[in-house]
Amino acid sequence: MKLEVVILAAGRGTRMRSNLPKVLHPLASRPLLAHVLDSARTLMPVRIHVVIGHGSELVREALDAKDLVWVLQEEQLGTGHAVLQAMPGIDVDSTVLVLYGDVPLLRASTLEGLIDNSPALLTANLEDPDGYGRVLRDSADQLQGVVEHKDASDEQRAVCEINTGVLAYPAALLVEYLPRVGNANAQGEYYLPDILSMAVQEGHCVAALRASEASEVMGINDRVQLAEAETVYRQRAAEALMLAGVSLADPTRIDVRGSLSCGRDVSIDVNCVFEGEVTLGEGVRIGPNCLVRNSTIAAGTEVQAMSHIDDSDVGDSCSVGPYARLRPGTTLAKGARIGNFVETKKALIGEGSKVNHLSYVGDAELGDGVNVGAGTITCNYDGVNKHKTSLGDGVFVGSNSTLVAPLEVGAGGFVAAGSTVTRDVPERTLGVSRAKQRNIDGWQTPKQRADDEKNQAQGD
Amino acid sequence: MKLEVVILAAGRGTRMRSNLPKVLHPLASRPLLAHVLDSARTLMPVRIHVVIGHGSELVREALDAKDLVWVLQEEQLGTGHAVLQAMPGIDVDSTVLVLYGDVPLLRASTLEGLIDNSPALLTANLEDPDGYGRVLRDSADQLQGVVEHKDASDEQRAVCEINTGVLAYPAALLVEYLPRVGNANAQGEYYLPDILSMAVQEGHCVAALRASEASEVMGINDRVQLAEAETVYRQRAAEALMLAGVSLADPTRIDVRGSLSCGRDVSIDVNCVFEGEVTLGEGVRIGPNCLVRNSTIAAGTEVQAMSHIDDSDVGDSCSVGPYARLRPGTTLAKGARIGNFVETKKALIGEGSKVNHLSYVGDAELGDGVNVGAGTITCNYDGVNKHKTSLGDGVFVGSNSTLVAPLEVGAGGFVAAGSTVTRDVPERTLGVSRAKQRNIDGWQTPKQRADDEKNQAQGD
Amino acid sequence: MKLEVVILAAGRGTRMRSNLPKVLHPLASRPLLAHVLDSARTLMPVRIHVVIGHGSELVREALDAKDLVWVLQEEQLGTGHAVLQAMPGIDVDSTVLVLYGDVPLLRASTLEGLIDNSPALLTANLEDPDGYGRVLRDSADQLQGVVEHKDASDEQRAVCEINTGVLAYPAALLVEYLPRVGNANAQGEYYLPDILSMAVQEGHCVAALRASEASEVMGINDRVQLAEAETVYRQRAAEALMLAGVSLADPTRIDVRGSLSCGRDVSIDVNCVFEGEVTLGEGVRIGPNCLVRNSTIAAGTEVQAMSHIDDSDVGDSCSVGPYARLRPGTTLAKGARIGNFVETKKALIGEGSKVNHLSYVGDAELGDGVNVGAGTITCNYDGVNKHKTSLGDGVFVGSNSTLVAPLEVGAGGFVAAGSTVTRDVPERTLGVSRAKQRNIDGWQTPKQRADDEKNQAQGD
Repeated sequence: MKLEVVILAAGRGTRMRSNLPKVLHPLASRPLLAHVLDSARTLMPVRIHVVIGHGSELVREALDAKDLVWVLQEEQLGTGHAVLQAMPGIDVDSTVLVLYGDVPLLRASTLEGLIDNSPALLTANLEDPDGYGRVLRDSADQLQGVVEHKDASDEQRAVCEINTGVLAYPAALLVEYLPRVGNANAQGEYYLPDILSMAVQEGHCVAALRASEASEVMGINDRVQLAEAETVYRQRAAEALMLAGVSLADPTRIDVRGSLSCGRDVSIDVNCVFEGEVTLGEGVRIGPNCLVRNSTIAAGTEVQAMSHIDDSDVGDSCSVGPYARLRPGTTLAKGARIGNFVETKKALIGEGSKVNHLSYVGDAELGDGVNVGAGTITCNYDGVNKHKTSLGDGVFVGSNSTLVAPLEVGAGGFVAAGSTVTRDVPERTLGVSRAKQRNIDGWQTPKQRADDEKNQAQGD
Repeated sequence: MKLEVVILAAGRGTRMRSNLPKVLHPLASRPLLAHVLDSARTLMPVRIHVVIGHGSELVREALDAKDLVWVLQEEQLGTGHAVLQAMPGIDVDSTVLVLYGDVPLLRASTLEGLIDNSPALLTANLEDPDGYGRVLRDSADQLQGVVEHKDASDEQRAVCEINTGVLAYPAALLVEYLPRVGNANAQGEYYLPDILSMAVQEGHCVAALRASEASEVMGINDRVQLAEAETVYRQRAAEALMLAGVSLADPTRIDVRGSLSCGRDVSIDVNCVFEGEVTLGEGVRIGPNCLVRNSTIAAGTEVQAMSHIDDSDVGDSCSVGPYARLRPGTTLAKGARIGNFVETKKALIGEGSKVNHLSYVGDAELGDGVNVGAGTITCNYDGVNKHKTSLGDGVFVGSNSTLVAPLEVGAGGFVAAGSTVTRDVPERTLGVSRAKQRNIDGWQTPKQRADDEKNQAQGD
Repeated sequence: MKLEVVILAAGRGTRMRSNLPKVLHPLASRPLLAHVLDSARTLMPVRIHVVIGHGSELVREALDAKDLVWVLQEEQLGTGHAVLQAMPGIDVDSTVLVLYGDVPLLRASTLEGLIDNSPALLTANLEDPDGYGRVLRDSADQLQGVVEHKDASDEQRAVCEINTGVLAYPAALLVEYLPRVGNANAQGEYYLPDILSMAVQEGHCVAALRASEASEVMGINDRVQLAEAETVYRQRAAEALMLAGVSLADPTRIDVRGSLSCGRDVSIDVNCVFEGEVTLGEGVRIGPNCLVRNSTIAAGTEVQAMSHIDDSDVGDSCSVGPYARLRPGTTLAKGARIGNFVETKKALIGEGSKVNHLSYVGDAELGDGVNVGAGTITCNYDGVNKHKTSLGDGVFVGSNSTLVAPLEVGAGGFVAAGSTVTRDVPERTLGVSRAKQRNIDGWQTPKQRADDEKNQAQGD
């Protein structure tokens, strides 16, 4: 049977105390709603209907995509009302899965189970169910309906099984029951779960499936809950990595915000953050406190502590850091070394080449076996345009050199330490620009002079 | 009724294994006793009496203030004896609140409840009450007295409600009972809580109020407990921030040691430390592993990973870091950018100005729209004095320049890359100091020479 | 009685999903097996027999030592079979302690208790004993035997006391019973614990001692468990430090991978990593996010945030960091200061000398009272050899200087800012190499030119 997904994402989220619509708050760097869309898409629905209201323009702008049908709920009159808004676009022969933009941690397998048992409600057992709608079952354990916390009796409040609101339902039943949902309750809202009691009363059997972990169904209403969801997300990602063969120094101190693919025997030290799409080859080691974003790091490379790698492509057997900053467009060939306090940007670093200390290499292409001395700066920017620096194979750039781009140093060329090089240096040629050194004796530093004067004054 | 507070802070704290008196050990960067004083001061007492003994000079020096009465307890003969030392300075018509210098996490609201119910004892339920004095209640749940763990029967030890020692008492009752407290117990000490049994036996009703969380009443006796208190402090601060609308990537990995005020929609990534007074404007984002101390960061600014900001004033819409170090006296105007491996100190950076890479800018004033190239150093120190560098609006400093202060570059001035500038550069003027570049061909690097020699040797 | 230790370390560790034999996976930076060897060695055995199989060459190579007898178990036929392989090398009059290469957290005191009660089995109570062999006791609480989970009845599976496999046994009993162990069980393996039932059935009394903490006996089968062991290790190290008088900002965020010796009143901020042998003197303070490896830091020194110290010797009262990188061979004399974005390597920094900003000091010897300006680089490498830089007492190196080694600057010498110095500078002499500054007026930056052109074009 065809599947249509409805995601309710119209709420304001007052308790977030935010200018941002609730469903746009980031979990692992992506909007809550994006996570729900991810889950929905794995189910291959024919359409995904997103019911929006508060901040609808922002939500739509942030997440628009071809497979989404945006449904505007002008007034937030309850979940039943919300789903009803989406019904006109839904094929009556389909199964409808109702999800929530602020319930981001549902597993696809849980949802598949729900769909397979449609009509079915997802429930969960909570240690502290306070505030949640409760699930009512008969003596045969069959679902009878649900009751909102505010409308529940004390006996009903003693139930620990809660209504998550997530359900899979034949569209035909929704068409039948949704228009009949009323709002005669404590909140004056049209509650979606009312269709459960109705269906049951009219002889339909509705399954009630318990989620295996309560964390799966947690909804986000404030930033404490948002942080809890982040913790669950962190744990899940960490556990998946470890079971796949990655060593984590501390699974409570790694943040994977996006996708992290790892080869065999990767090890990741404490407190690292991965964002976007990151791939680590076999045996890669990442030191403590690193941040890696949208990058590939090939087999055998070691990234030392406190490095920061962004949109870069690091070859195998490289050594990076500590304190290396690879900015977008950096490519390191095999065996390259980027050392401490070095920044690279749009830079191709050839095989075995080294930039080990305190340098800025931007808009540059380095051949193989190049050695860039400490304190070297490529002057790629003249205030308007960026210019390129090319260093051929085997070039040796002496320390504290200034390479004024556009500049080309031919293979085997050499730049003398402390030089400012503004013209190309041909192959196997020494480029040097230094003033002659003078040693001026009898000279006093300001400090010596001050000391002498002080001594003299005291001698008087 | 007037309130007088007595804080017992005379103990040695042997288990801290420290040269520092126990109450001076820092919690969230401030002495334990300072936290107790904070709580006391919110109650607006007429006086705060601090009973000191071990390391009394150090304690007094660290925390002296006008509202404090220092009371020296020469010998530590017990808590009853300690309070007795303070009585001569206490108005007999007041209520006395007894606090402890090593119990730093009490909430003001808890103390207010205690004062309102004076005479009243604060108690707490502990899962493991081992070692603590137990609270004895009669069948009507009224307080009968307390008993020290060492003096307790097995039956009494089974009680989980413990005596925190914190109490509010009419001064008149203290005057009456304290002198009658004896020391015929296992430790030979004069116990303050003995006044409870006395008062009860003579027909006074003493309230016993349970603290809502055990963590509130925890005392610090060793560094394991100190770390536990730090954890509670961290959680409290994190939760308060989140409920106020701050997004924390991980509430277990943020340290707020002082006061952190945040505008709407601030987000703070993992592992940041805030010290002293810090203010973050609306929408400020702080990346992972940052340290911010006594600084203000205005709306919309992003601080990237691993930045270190101290006594600085960062304007709105700025970009700072990663690896930026703003030292005291740094002021960034709107839209300024400080990039990686850049250190600033006593520096005013004008609107939209940029110091993006590997620079030191100290004792400097930059106008608007200034661009400081990578590797630029202000030479502000001659070994005796610090001198100032001024760069006018729109100045462009080429990379790897050395700016020898005192120095002024006029608006629109330009310093050529690699120059050492020692004299002022007027407006719209180019300052350059470079030796002419020579290219010397046929030149060999030491490596090439070594390789050639090796090849030749092998060829022989 | 003499003690012989047998360590079973032949397993493959399939669930680690690794190319590395399981017992070589690092816990706190050292192989699991190394931790077991540490525990074994504290017991002063006459020999340690290590039974290896999968990856035997790698294991042997990684851990070979004089006191180890390597026993190859060609086929892994079970623990009974494994111990049997070691028996030929064991003195029949000894006590044999059987340990496991993947059970790294046993305390020596636990093992001593076991040996004292030989024959004795170590057991543990687990909340979730699923998958473990269960301990069977009679009504008098005496050990009857153990049963593997796969072979256990439901009733037996309800037992929470598990067989750790760790046992101390008279060699004579092993000689008697091991050859009789059969493999008629679900796995078809020769189980070492079968000797327990045999001995009991033949009237021997075998003690069954419970480990005080379940964490002590945890075995490592996958990387989730490896991370759990790391957490236990971390907690143990942190607690020991705190009880010894070290203040830890967060005991869950410190990693001690090796030995960390601390003087009185050391404090360590969040997220630090210590590797190898590290010694911190009295009152040393380590800021957040630091990494310290194989180094000594003397009394009163402060290491600020994000510093990285490796194989260095830091004197007392020094100031290091933030963002300082001390590489191997760095020695700081008393009161030296290494500031931000500074890298040192094979460098002796004299008393009170300062390298405060953005410098590289390698292969260098600095006298006392030296000041190295920001951006200074020692050019120690010519592409083939490393050369030395010597700066005498009181030398002042101006900012952005380039010191081309081999180079000597005599005491009281001065290098002018921005100079590239290639020849020695005598005592009290100024070395300077600068091109004369020219100011060229009417000059336009590319940006000014672009702006002017744009304005002109618009004016047309």
